Amino acid sequence: MIKVAVLGASGYTGGELLRLISSHPEVELTAATSEQSNGKPIDSVFPNLTGRLPLTLEALDLNRLIRMADVFFLALPHTTAMPVAARLLEKKKKVVDLSADFRLKDPKIYEAWYMTPHQFPGLLDRASYGLSELHRDAIKSATLVANPGCYPTGALLGLLPLFAGARVDPSRIIIDAKSGVSGAGRGPTPATHFPEANEAISAYSVGRHRHRPEIEQELSGMIGQTVSVTFTPHLIPVNRGILTTIYARSNGSMDTAEAVALYRDFYKGEPFIRILPPGELPNTRNVQGCNDCHIGLVADRPESRSVTELVIVTAIDNLVKGAAGQAIQNMNLMTGLEETCGLTAPGLFP
Amino acid sequence: MIKVAVLGASGYTGGELLRLISSHPEVELTAATSEQSNGKPIDSVFPNLTGRLPLTLEALDLNRLIRMADVFFLALPHTTAMPVAARLLEKKKKVVDLSADFRLKDPKIYEAWYMTPHQFPGLLDRASYGLSELHRDAIKSATLVANPGCYPTGALLGLLPLFAGARVDPSRIIIDAKSGVSGAGRGPTPATHFPEANEAISAYSVGRHRHRPEIEQELSGMIGQTVSVTFTPHLIPVNRGILTTIYARSNGSMDTAEAVALYRDFYKGEPFIRILPPGELPNTRNVQGCNDCHIGLVADRPESRSVTELVIVTAIDNLVKGAAGQAIQNMNLMTGLEETCGLTAPGLFP
Amino acid sequence: MIKVAVLGASGYTGGELLRLISSHPEVELTAATSEQSNGKPIDSVFPNLTGRLPLTLEALDLNRLIRMADVFFLALPHTTAMPVAARLLEKKKKVVDLSADFRLKDPKIYEAWYMTPHQFPGLLDRASYGLSELHRDAIKSATLVANPGCYPTGALLGLLPLFAGARVDPSRIIIDAKSGVSGAGRGPTPATHFPEANEAISAYSVGRHRHRPEIEQELSGMIGQTVSVTFTPHLIPVNRGILTTIYARSNGSMDTAEAVALYRDFYKGEPFIRILPPGELPNTRNVQGCNDCHIGLVADRPESRSVTELVIVTAIDNLVKGAAGQAIQNMNLMTGLEETCGLTAPGLFP
Amino acid sequence: MIKVAVLGASGYTGGELLRLISSHPEVELTAATSEQSNGKPIDSVFPNLTGRLPLTLEALDLNRLIRMADVFFLALPHTTAMPVAARLLEKKKKVVDLSADFRLKDPKIYEAWYMTPHQFPGLLDRASYGLSELHRDAIKSATLVANPGCYPTGALLGLLPLFAGARVDPSRIIIDAKSGVSGAGRGPTPATHFPEANEAISAYSVGRHRHRPEIEQELSGMIGQTVSVTFTPHLIPVNRGILTTIYARSNGSMDTAEAVALYRDFYKGEPFIRILPPGELPNTRNVQGCNDCHIGLVADRPESRSVTELVIVTAIDNLVKGAAGQAIQNMNLMTGLEETCGLTAPGLFP
Repeated sequence: MIKVAVLGASGYTGGELLRLISSHPEVELTAATSEQSNGKPIDSVFPNLTGRLPLTLEALDLNRLIRMADVFFLALPHTTAMPVAARLLEKKKKVVDLSADFRLKDPKIYEAWYMTPHQFPGLLDRASYGLSELHRDAIKSATLVANPGCYPTGALLGLLPLFAGARVDPSRIIIDAKSGVSGAGRGPTPATHFPEANEAISAYSVGRHRHRPEIEQELSGMIGQTVSVTFTPHLIPVNRGILTTIYARSNGSMDTAEAVALYRDFYKGEPFIRILPPGELPNTRNVQGCNDCHIGLVADRPESRSVTELVIVTAIDNLVKGAAGQAIQNMNLMTGLEETCGLTAPGLFP
Repeated sequence: MIKVAVLGASGYTGGELLRLISSHPEVELTAATSEQSNGKPIDSVFPNLTGRLPLTLEALDLNRLIRMADVFFLALPHTTAMPVAARLLEKKKKVVDLSADFRLKDPKIYEAWYMTPHQFPGLLDRASYGLSELHRDAIKSATLVANPGCYPTGALLGLLPLFAGARVDPSRIIIDAKSGVSGAGRGPTPATHFPEANEAISAYSVGRHRHRPEIEQELSGMIGQTVSVTFTPHLIPVNRGILTTIYARSNGSMDTAEAVALYRDFYKGEPFIRILPPGELPNTRNVQGCNDCHIGLVADRPESRSVTELVIVTAIDNLVKGAAGQAIQNMNLMTGLEETCGLTAPGLFP
Repeated sequence: MIKVAVLGASGYTGGELLRLISSHPEVELTAATSEQSNGKPIDSVFPNLTGRLPLTLEALDLNRLIRMADVFFLALPHTTAMPVAARLLEKKKKVVDLSADFRLKDPKIYEAWYMTPHQFPGLLDRASYGLSELHRDAIKSATLVANPGCYPTGALLGLLPLFAGARVDPSRIIIDAKSGVSGAGRGPTPATHFPEANEAISAYSVGRHRHRPEIEQELSGMIGQTVSVTFTPHLIPVNRGILTTIYARSNGSMDTAEAVALYRDFYKGEPFIRILPPGELPNTRNVQGCNDCHIGLVADRPESRSVTELVIVTAIDNLVKGAAGQAIQNMNLMTGLEETCGLTAPGLFP
Repeated sequence: MIKVAVLGASGYTGGELLRLISSHPEVELTAATSEQSNGKPIDSVFPNLTGRLPLTLEALDLNRLIRMADVFFLALPHTTAMPVAARLLEKKKKVVDLSADFRLKDPKIYEAWYMTPHQFPGLLDRASYGLSELHRDAIKSATLVANPGCYPTGALLGLLPLFAGARVDPSRIIIDAKSGVSGAGRGPTPATHFPEANEAISAYSVGRHRHRPEIEQELSGMIGQTVSVTFTPHLIPVNRGILTTIYARSNGSMDTAEAVALYRDFYKGEPFIRILPPGELPNTRNVQGCNDCHIGLVADRPESRSVTELVIVTAIDNLVKGAAGQAIQNMNLMTGLEETCGLTAPGLFP
């Protein structure tokens, strides 16, 4: 059994890590930390785990923790995660960081978007961006994996096949994403107060959401040229799920069947990607609680237009494939386990 | 008091007409029809109206109805509305048609999208497209008004100022719309069954929704050239509201403040349009039950791009400004009443 | 026009008062206070009121406010409302207090449930309990009205006819109430954070909710003997509405038709009470945004039982009949206006 | 591996059986039937199962099916299940019937509540009522298990300890149950149409719900005397979950701590029952997707009353412990597997 610890375990991402770990056949949870809930049993903070993980949340004491686990999941706030990761790497531990601290390769971009200088720029090169569908080999040998943001996961999985094949005009990618409220975290705020978030649809942080440079970095890396995207996140009154609707202009003619074939070919053998047949579109309802990403495609080519607008729709559970599930997937790769280990249970329906 | 009748009163649009009429100071409801609920009191079909409209729903008997009212609201299915409108016009009645039957000016386009020939093509020219912010003068003298679809209302209100000023590239307009479930009508279906629609986000009818040609017609009319749009509707688990996120590439440089100023100027004096200050974005929650349209704007101009992507977000209540409220607004114009009469009550919050 | 002020206007109850006042034909809002949002325009705090109440929220400066209005609505926290009310009464103003400060006649009971001595016990006798269906005459001549709590409103309206006729065993009344989340106020908390309140049903404060002594006081007053009730509130993921299911054992035999007849007779002429016919049961959906209370009844008398269990179900909007609407109703009575003035608009459906 | 078949697999209960079976380590699904979706792959009907159960739904052909499995789950409509069960028993198969056909021991009571004579009264004695916390030993040796209804599961688990100890007055048990909408099945209806069920709280079938005689039968059996209960089901806008609030008058004095101790003692060793500490109350949110039942207790004893009203609150997932999970638990017992096998995964939070 691999010994794992979850640092920052009292938020939704931490709780989802605990849930998945509790059912993972090859992993044993040895410690979980929370400053706020220090001293409380896990199941008082996550009553769904009653009787399943009989541990008590503890304060983050690295000296103690280092001896307890081999793989560390950091579900800490950005800037807090960095020094912890650095210390763990020194001690030859494996780290899956779910914060934003090691996602952006360029410390200047980090500073521009997170308003603070990166404290460990030397570690950035060592971190693998943990989208296994793109960087599987690097992840396998990595000791530090930067787990992708929830929005970048849904957006990138929808764009990889097009960028891999240079099939679209990279100068006008539009990403319109709709997220459930758990993506905003567990801390109560006016915008996530039930009566204000319920029966409400809104956009936020248009053009300035911190997940945007992450998407741009990975797309730019694929084609070796700077890519800018227009990215609009929306808040939707569901607990879980991100539906990402992507608009990309095809370089040449492409119909829906060709698009579907292209995606099926690109994602052949991928255990968590499901390309829907032409005519079907994904629904976040179908991936609640599971690590799957469903992708549907429509080639929109009105008669009066000379080019094809591809509409790509992806659905993930923001807490699973968009966070904790992908983190487990990365851990599986880093430790030589079967990639799907602990991640095969289907989601809830309805 | 103006005598009005609502034909097809048992659906959500019909019910919303009844609700607004019940509070309208210058209007008296003299008849309401429903084939399905023929013989039932209105408040057994709409319990919110208990004690407010003591009428009984009746079958659609035009000979009888014609003597009873001066203005007729048709909330009938498309193709059913046409012959009724024709007959009422013969009898010099005023008609606000909430179906799709008179929205498209070109009978060939009607036939292409509704899969049936138009039976009264001669009436198409007589119908005014009932978006008062665009066609107010025509509506004032019209006897037949084609009340816009819910999606076209939200989309067009977000695009009018840009098309009026020829400020955008018309060849790539992207409209990503999110609608509450009442937009799908009152008839139960698998997709709108509570457990399937709840906790679910999905796109549907991508590229082939019938509201698309309506948007294209009006935009084309504004600039005198054929415009195609990419239009993606989504189903969101709220009862009321459409949030429309529109992406339009500016012809020249434009920042957010300029965009807001442009919209404020264009909509100056409009009683139902609220342009939010820079930095604020609309939320469907704020227009529940009222005829307002809130509009927010962001000019997205990343350094690496030479042009500006304008992101325009509009919020309406699909049943009010997107249907029944706009129909009342049209009736007010057609009958010489104050345009805002009966439409000033604020929406519910929360 | 009657000049009114709303003190404590930034919460949900305050906002609902503003909404109703904005449509009330005989009332003019002259001031609205909020410590937290002092200096902000009303419509920045309640965007549904955009363009409708062009006032700015101000700090609570009684010296200034006293000159500005004739009737004051206090939507202040309990204990804060008391001294304000006392001061306003000195100045011969009329006060509708929506806090709990003047609901309980016995200062010892107030102290026991609110954990602090009452500061103005001498005013308690002067306050009328503002359930107009029970105390209409007293309210008409009152200068201080204690607006009932939301739960007591739903519970008492369901029990008045039985207690008036001494038709039930008062020693075992069970009140099982289900409330929407707006009842918990506008301040964000863990329990009302969207992902925790959504998809969740729970009971809370069983046996010790502060609305219980209020119910007991009024029932005791009706029959001249101490009544204890079992009262269980529940939190339900809707924005508005309280459904109250009441179980009361009939003194003698009573079938559903008799129960309905008893209630119809008792509430004859009441403008806001709707007794549903036998076989129909109320739904909070039907009273959203309106001042109505719908009541349905079932007499449950299984063969093996000698007595009848009456099941009474009432539905109100907690923010309207349960708070702001009832407060307006009380103001109408206190000022000699028509009781229904400004309260006739139907609710939203759906 | 035990071979199992699910007959009637396209509804929510059927789908939940498939979900649990797909993760069950000792069971293999060999057939699943659906008349309506005959010929469709399972994952087109339950997209959450994509890639997990590569079977096609087939018509119910018993001759063929009998050779394919050893244990049959019947998720068929009542009256349809009976003859299928009879036939399977003849062929020495084990049957878990999730319909109501074998729950009521007295064919007259079946006929009174289901409006049709029972066709196989001779089998009623052979059926074990599948509440393992009450009838574990009988279930272990049973070939036909009548899986309890969802409401009876939540109600009985809340009452067993009191009836076992004869600690309450059996003549006035009140059960106020609140269910999510999946309990109403997968077929679209007006009452479960999203806009009508959303933002709505209502009671239904007061006094005449078919789950009532099932509760009464089991309680009567425990104390050897006829018990009548008052049972009020409510529809709540969540997908999953039943919260049952039970009111029972204690025979003698009992405080909350004693009640909790009594329940802890009674349910000692039960793998799926969690008695919450005094002061805590259950929430359906905490059991979504899992087989647990959480129980909280409050002894309500106001000074003015001589007796104690016990308020017992239970939370289950209606599709798991209230249907498919309990069915798997019964199958485990019937086949000699570990009772918890395949049922240990925690639920989703949030």
